[in-house]
Order: sequence, then structure tokens, then C-alpha cells
Amino acid sequence: MAERKKLYEGKAKILYATEDPAVLVTYFKDDATAFNAQKRGTIVNKGRINNAVSTHLFQLLEAQGIATHWIDSPQGQADGREMWVKPVTIVPLEVVVRNLAAGSLCRQTGIALGTPLTPPLVEFYYKNDDLGDPLLTCDRIRAMDIASDDTVTQLQQMAQRINQVLINFFNGCGITLVDFKLEFGTLADGTLVLADEISPDTCRLWNQNETDESRRVMDKDRFRQDLGDVESGYQQVLDRILAHTS
Amino acid sequence: MAERKKLYEGKAKILYATEDPAVLVTYFKDDATAFNAQKRGTIVNKGRINNAVSTHLFQLLEAQGIATHWIDSPQGQADGREMWVKPVTIVPLEVVVRNLAAGSLCRQTGIALGTPLTPPLVEFYYKNDDLGDPLLTCDRIRAMDIASDDTVTQLQQMAQRINQVLINFFNGCGITLVDFKLEFGTLADGTLVLADEISPDTCRLWNQNETDESRRVMDKDRFRQDLGDVESGYQQVLDRILAHTS
Repeated sequence: MAERKKLYEGKAKILYATEDPAVLVTYFKDDATAFNAQKRGTIVNKGRINNAVSTHLFQLLEAQGIATHWIDSPQGQADGREMWVKPVTIVPLEVVVRNLAAGSLCRQTGIALGTPLTPPLVEFYYKNDDLGDPLLTCDRIRAMDIASDDTVTQLQQMAQRINQVLINFFNGCGITLVDFKLEFGTLADGTLVLADEISPDTCRLWNQNETDESRRVMDKDRFRQDLGDVESGYQQVLDRILAHTS
Repeated sequence: MAERKKLYEGKAKILYATEDPAVLVTYFKDDATAFNAQKRGTIVNKGRINNAVSTHLFQLLEAQGIATHWIDSPQGQADGREMWVKPVTIVPLEVVVRNLAAGSLCRQTGIALGTPLTPPLVEFYYKNDDLGDPLLTCDRIRAMDIASDDTVTQLQQMAQRINQVLINFFNGCGITLVDFKLEFGTLADGTLVLADEISPDTCRLWNQNETDESRRVMDKDRFRQDLGDVESGYQQVLDRILAHTS
């Protein structure tokens, strides 16, 4: 992995090419942004933690037959911030699964924070920073010609299966999976696979041992809402995952 | 209609009770607001014009078998600003039908102004000024328990039928119906009927004799975008409707 070309630098990760066209490297940064990058900061060790959490969850999902872009997360390299992934063409949709109401759903609809959503909501947002990642209806996805109806249906089904696996897993860790954002991509042969990351940056995770509204938060809302102890929230998610899987 | 109790004053209309519980009176004001009432002004004669336009269109729709709240628009009273309507319980959804892309759809999705939408989009927005009338998905409507699935399906079907009638009618007037907003309500027996108004306040209407992007606008976009000649845009819509139906 000597020669590397930076393909893309995002807000939280950098993507590199390697000498093997079938392998890309994702490097997880400590940079944190929120509110479409209007708020910026650093969460110490976030890159290492998010890579470890994502690695565990991708392996868990692969074991349940859900295809992901994950290949390997080599230990002892770059402080554990690197993940090897398959190259994909990203579907320009953020797929958000909501088990309890939180965040923009509450702000936009007036539904109270923490209201259980039965069945869980699977929502699509346009992955476009310039437009502020707006909510999309299925009709808008069709009008924009972003993804076929078949792809949308597949994304909904995969998101629901992933949700079931993750709810059960996090419950075993004493953590409530409130909501999370997924991104998907297609491999060269057209197969749709889960891509990006699953981490405290992309999930809302509530500590089941805490009832206090601000103390229970273990995810990026600690950064968004200036709740303090951001690093320890992230670290505790990882610690619980490691304890649960060991 | 001597005794009147004001039931509700909105941004563009006032609703009064009458001595007959089966009849309410809508009074059309000249007040104009845009961008969730952040922009305010007056459009001279707007109340009279919008009442006349709405009256023509409600009669047209009734003749096509589409139930509305309209009863009568008495001439010679209150400068032609009054419409008698049936009392309804308003469904808290704004139903927007889009034939060509314009307005918030363009801002939110990047679809270019004037792009034909085939089939037309039927969209739902939460009728809630405090929340800024946000776009809703069908799943959000279900989670919010605002309207049943049956009601949503009925609203979609009625909106599509209304769109067909209005497209044809406005085409006959040399006007392109770009998009429009509908509100519905239920009568005491549960029947869903078209309510509110259909006017240059609630439609985007483009003059087919003009190709220039700002000159063709005959609707509230003249006010929103400070295009000038707001009154004459509204008046011309009414004049063409009268000429077409006479």
C-alpha cells in the first residue's frame, strides 16, 4: 500500500486509491462537522473509534448476508484509522432509518422527541451539500431520475433488514438505536452494497442506563448540541460493542 | 346576512359564521403575504379578483362532478369579495400539484425551472405556519396520524382529476397551469370536498403569449419576486377566464 492517490476528501474521511484497482482505502479523520458544515470541530480519537465501530458492524451485517463495501480493517496501521473497501459508485441518496423520533423529523413535523415510530420510517434525502441534503419523496426521486423504482425498493428492503440486525445488536449492548443514516453504492457488476460507515457520527444512540435526556446521548448529538464529553460518549459505544462481542 | 361572528382571520381571507349554520361567508382580502408571512403587502383588488376566479373554477369543477365547499358568490355585496361556503373540517394538508418544476421544488432538488413533470407531481405539505409548511412523505403523514391512508389516496385522486380539468380550462385561456395548491375539508357527513380557493394566489400561471421568464408570470410570483405589475397580472387572469367562458 505504498503508492496512494487521494481520490476524494470528505468532511470525516479521505478516500485513497491503491495499486490494486479492486481496493480503496478509507482514512477516518477526527474532524467533526454538523448542520451542513456550518459547525466545525475536532473529536479526539473519533477516526479510530468510528473505524472500529464501523468495522464491527459491517462484519456483523456481512455475517447476516448483507453485502457491504468492507474488505478489511488492517490493525497497527495509521493508528487504526484505515479501512479497505471495494470501489463503488455511490447512489446519491442518504437513507435514514428512524425507530424513535429525533432531530429534523421532530423539528419539521412537531412529533415529540423519542416518540416510537411503528413501523420504523425509512426516509430518503438527496446527498447534495449545496442543496442542504433535502428530504425527498419517492415521486421526487423519480422526477429527478436519481435512482430507479427498483433501486428505491431494494434500498428500502436492505435498510429494513439492516435495522433489524442493528436494533438487536445494540439492544444487547444496552444501547437504543434511535435512528441512523446509510449510504449505498453499486459494484462494477451492478450489485447494490452498503457503503460509507455506521458509527456514532451517523447514528443516534441512547444509553439505556441513563434516563436523563442529555446524559443518555452517546453520538454526534453531543457535538451538535454542545453536551460535552463527546469523546467519552463515542468511546463508550466502542467499549460496549467490544464487551458484547468478546 | 346581518349578524356575523368572525370565526377565523387568515393571511388572505376572513371566515364568518352566519345565522344559518349550513352557510359560512369567506371574505377575500387584498392583503398579500409570501415566504411564510415574512414578506407582506397589498395587491389592490386582489380580494375581488381571487373571489371571482375561485368562483369560476369551483363552478367549473362542480360541473365536472368534483365536490367543493362552494355554495354561492353573491354579486353586488362587499364589492364582490364574499363567497358563501359549506362549513368543513379542514384536513391539515396542503396538496400541491406540479405540472412544470418551479418554486421550492427547484430550490430543493436542483430541477430546472419549467421542466415538465410527467406524470405531474402530487405533493403533501403540513399546513402549519409555525413549522413553515414542511414537505411531508406519505410515511410521515402516517406517523403524524394527520390523515388516514384512504384519505391520502382520495386526496391524490381528486387532485389529479382537478388538475386535468384545470389544465384543459387554462389552456383554453392561453395560460399554462404550472402548479397549484389545494386544501380539502370534510363535511359533517364525512364527505371530502375541495375547500379554500383557487386563484393567482395559489396557482402558478404562465401567459402562453409571453416567452420572457419574468413577463409571462401572471400569479403571486410577481409579488414574491418583485416583478412589478402585480395587479394587472391578476386582472388579466380574470379577464381571460371571463372571455373564455362568455
